[in-house]
Amino acid sequence: MKPAKVVILGAGYGGVVTAIRLQKLIRSGEMTITLVNKHDYHYMTTHLHMPAAGTDHHENARVAIRDLIDERKIQFVKSTVQQILPTDKKVVLTDDTLSYDYLVVGLGSETETFGIPGLREHAMSIHSINSVRFIRQHTQYMFAKYKMNPQHKEYLTFVVGGAGFTGTEFVGELADRIPVLCRTYDVDPALVQIINVEASPTALPPGLPNDLVEYGMEVMRRKGVQYKLSTAIQACEADGVRLSDGQFIRAGTIIWSGGVRGNALLQQAGFDVQRGRVKVDDYLRSWQYPDVFITGDCSIVMSPEGTPYPANAQIAVQQGYNTARNLLYTLRGKPLRPFAYDYKGTVASLGRGEAVGTLKVKKVKGKFAALIKKMIDARYLFLIGGIPLIWKKMIFKQKMSNRNFHVRS
Amino acid sequence: MKPAKVVILGAGYGGVVTAIRLQKLIRSGEMTITLVNKHDYHYMTTHLHMPAAGTDHHENARVAIRDLIDERKIQFVKSTVQQILPTDKKVVLTDDTLSYDYLVVGLGSETETFGIPGLREHAMSIHSINSVRFIRQHTQYMFAKYKMNPQHKEYLTFVVGGAGFTGTEFVGELADRIPVLCRTYDVDPALVQIINVEASPTALPPGLPNDLVEYGMEVMRRKGVQYKLSTAIQACEADGVRLSDGQFIRAGTIIWSGGVRGNALLQQAGFDVQRGRVKVDDYLRSWQYPDVFITGDCSIVMSPEGTPYPANAQIAVQQGYNTARNLLYTLRGKPLRPFAYDYKGTVASLGRGEAVGTLKVKKVKGKFAALIKKMIDARYLFLIGGIPLIWKKMIFKQKMSNRNFHVRS
Repeated sequence: MKPAKVVILGAGYGGVVTAIRLQKLIRSGEMTITLVNKHDYHYMTTHLHMPAAGTDHHENARVAIRDLIDERKIQFVKSTVQQILPTDKKVVLTDDTLSYDYLVVGLGSETETFGIPGLREHAMSIHSINSVRFIRQHTQYMFAKYKMNPQHKEYLTFVVGGAGFTGTEFVGELADRIPVLCRTYDVDPALVQIINVEASPTALPPGLPNDLVEYGMEVMRRKGVQYKLSTAIQACEADGVRLSDGQFIRAGTIIWSGGVRGNALLQQAGFDVQRGRVKVDDYLRSWQYPDVFITGDCSIVMSPEGTPYPANAQIAVQQGYNTARNLLYTLRGKPLRPFAYDYKGTVASLGRGEAVGTLKVKKVKGKFAALIKKMIDARYLFLIGGIPLIWKKMIFKQKMSNRNFHVRS
Repeated sequence: MKPAKVVILGAGYGGVVTAIRLQKLIRSGEMTITLVNKHDYHYMTTHLHMPAAGTDHHENARVAIRDLIDERKIQFVKSTVQQILPTDKKVVLTDDTLSYDYLVVGLGSETETFGIPGLREHAMSIHSINSVRFIRQHTQYMFAKYKMNPQHKEYLTFVVGGAGFTGTEFVGELADRIPVLCRTYDVDPALVQIINVEASPTALPPGLPNDLVEYGMEVMRRKGVQYKLSTAIQACEADGVRLSDGQFIRAGTIIWSGGVRGNALLQQAGFDVQRGRVKVDDYLRSWQYPDVFITGDCSIVMSPEGTPYPANAQIAVQQGYNTARNLLYTLRGKPLRPFAYDYKGTVASLGRGEAVGTLKVKKVKGKFAALIKKMIDARYLFLIGGIPLIWKKMIFKQKMSNRNFHVRS
C-alpha cells in the first residue's frame, strides 16, 4: 500500500503540534507528511505582546521549524499557500502544487476590522513576528520623531483599539516600556498617553470575574493607562481615530486588537465559513470535506452548551493532539476519538510581575498569576521542544536577545 | 569695580572649551559667566556618525553640561537663543533676555542645502543627538517596514549625499551595521544598497592624498558601498533623489551631508556673513563688534595663505582656548594674543578598525589610523572632563549603553 499523503498548512499552534505528534506516533511507511509555512519559524502568538512593546526580543517568541521537526519524517516546505482546492485534493503554493490524501488546515487568523474605515490602512496589529517588529520600531520612531518636531505632541499618543486579551497584554507591556523610552529619548513621561478604547463596557478578557477586572484595571491605571469603555472606533485616519462619542484623538500610533477572523483562503476555497472560520465536526473535520481537518483560529468548535469556544492557543494545541491521533486512527481503520476541550483556565499578563486570570474555577492575580503565566509559557515550550527549548527561550533569553545587537532601542 | 558680564552662547566645542578654560583661569570677582545652551548636554559632533548608524549608543556621544562646568563659577541656562542684539549688547532667549559686556558666539552650524529642492523636507542630516537618534530609528524602521511590504525594495536603499568627512564616516559605520540589521530583520543583505553621491570627482575628505583616497574607497567598496562621483543631487523627493545624470534613485532613506553654513542668527543680527559665517579678526572677534567673540562653525578664520580654514572640531577647540585667554587679557588690560591654528592632521574613520588620514605630513591608514582616531577622541574627552570622562564614555561604554535598555535594534 502506498503511504497516505498528509499535508499540513501552517506552522502555528495547531499545525506544529499536529506535526510533532505525528512524527512521534507514525509507523514507517504509514504516511508522508509535508508541512507548509510561509516562514521558516514557528512563533508563539501568546508571547507577541512583549516584542511588540519592546519589553522582550522577538527571538524569544519564535523557534526555527527545523529545530522542532524531524526532517527524516516530515518534509518542510517554506512557501505561501495561494489556494486550496478541496474537490481536487490539491493545494496551490507560490511555486508548486501539492496533492494530498488528508489535509490539515492551520492557517491562523486575519485581522477583523468590522468594516471600520481606515483601520486596515492606518492601524497596526499584533499578529506576526514581522508585525510586532514593526510595532516596536514604529513606537521608537515616534519618540525619535517627536524630538525632531516637538510641536507634534500626538506622536507620543498611543491608541489601542480593543481591551480584550491581546489589547490588555500589549497595553500592560507598553506602559512598562514607556519610562525606558522616555529616558532613552529625553522625553517627559507626562507627555505620553496610552489610551485603550473598548466598545464593550468592560476592559480585560471577557469572562473574567468582576473583582479581577477591577483589580486589573486598577493595576493598569496606576501604570498610566487611560480607558475609554463603551466607546467604539468609528474611523481611523492617518493621524488619529474618530470615536463614537464624537471625539477625535490625534495619535502617532494606532494598534488594533479588536478582533480576528479566520484565514480568507477557506472562504475562497468554498468552505462554509462564519467570520472566515469553519464549523468542524466532532473530529475537527470539515463537514463538507471529511479529509480536511481544521485547527486553531480557522476552526469553530462548539461547546456542549452550544456556544463556540473562543479561539486561543490552548484549544489549538489540544486540537493538534486530537488531529494527529485521528489521522492515524483514520489510516489504521480505528474509530476516531471526538475532540473534548479541556479548559484549564486563562491568565492575562498585565505587564511585569502582574497578571489576572482563572484556573479552572480558581481566581488568580498579582505576582502569583504572573508566575502561573510563565509556567503556561514554559509548559508549551516543553511540549514542542522539551527542556532545551525552555532553556533557550526562557532561561537563557537575556543572553539570546543580547547576542546579535550592537545597540539598543 | 563690577565684574564683567560674559555670556557664552552654545555649548559646542568652542563654547564648552571657552567656558572650561575660563572657569580654570578667572580670579574671584573678575567676571560672571553665563553659558546658554538649548540642551543640558554637550555632544561630540565628531562622534555622531556612530549613533546615527547605530554602531554606538548616543549616550557615548554626549556629556551632561553639569558634569563639565563648575556651577559656582558658571551659571548654566538651558534655553534657546532667539535673537542677538549686538548694538544693545543683549541676547534674547525663549524666556529671558540677557545683557552682556562680552559675548562668545558658538552656536554651530546649520545644514547648507545649496537651494536643492526638497532637501530640507525629505533628507535627514547628522547634526545633533536628536537628529542621529532619528536617523538610527529611521534606518531600523525601514527594515521593519520592508518586512511588512516586501514589494518596496527601495526601503532598503540608503542614499547619502556628500562623500566628505561626515558622509564618509557615516557610510563606513552604516555599511558595518547592515549585516546586523539584516540578521535582526531576516533580510537578505544582497537587497540592501548604500549609495554615496558626491558632486566632486573624488570621495573622502578633501585634501587627502590620492593613494589614501583610493585605499579608503577600496575599503568602502568591499563593505558594499557604491559611489556615484561627479554626480550632483538635483532634487530630493519623498521617495528618492534625482541625480544630475538623469537617474532617479528610489530610496527609503536620504541623508544629506553635503555642506553646512553658520547659524542663521548671526545674519539676522546684522553681522556680515558668508554662508552664515562671520570672518573674524586676529583675536576671533567680530570686526563690527569687538566685544563679540565668535568660535567654531560660526566663524571664518583665514590661513596665512589667505584661504579659510575648514571648520572642524580641532579648530573650534583651539579657538576656545584662545578666546578664554583673550577675554581675560581684555579685562586685565594685557595685549591680546592672535589666534594661530596648529593643524595636527585629520583622520577619517571608515568603520570598525579602519581609517585614513594625515598627521602633520605623515599619512596613516588602516588599523593604525583607526587607533589614532580613538586617541584623538580620548584626548578631547581628557581635555574637557579628565580621566573620569574617558573612563565613562570610552572604556565603560559597553556597560553604559546597555544600562537603560531592554531591547535592542
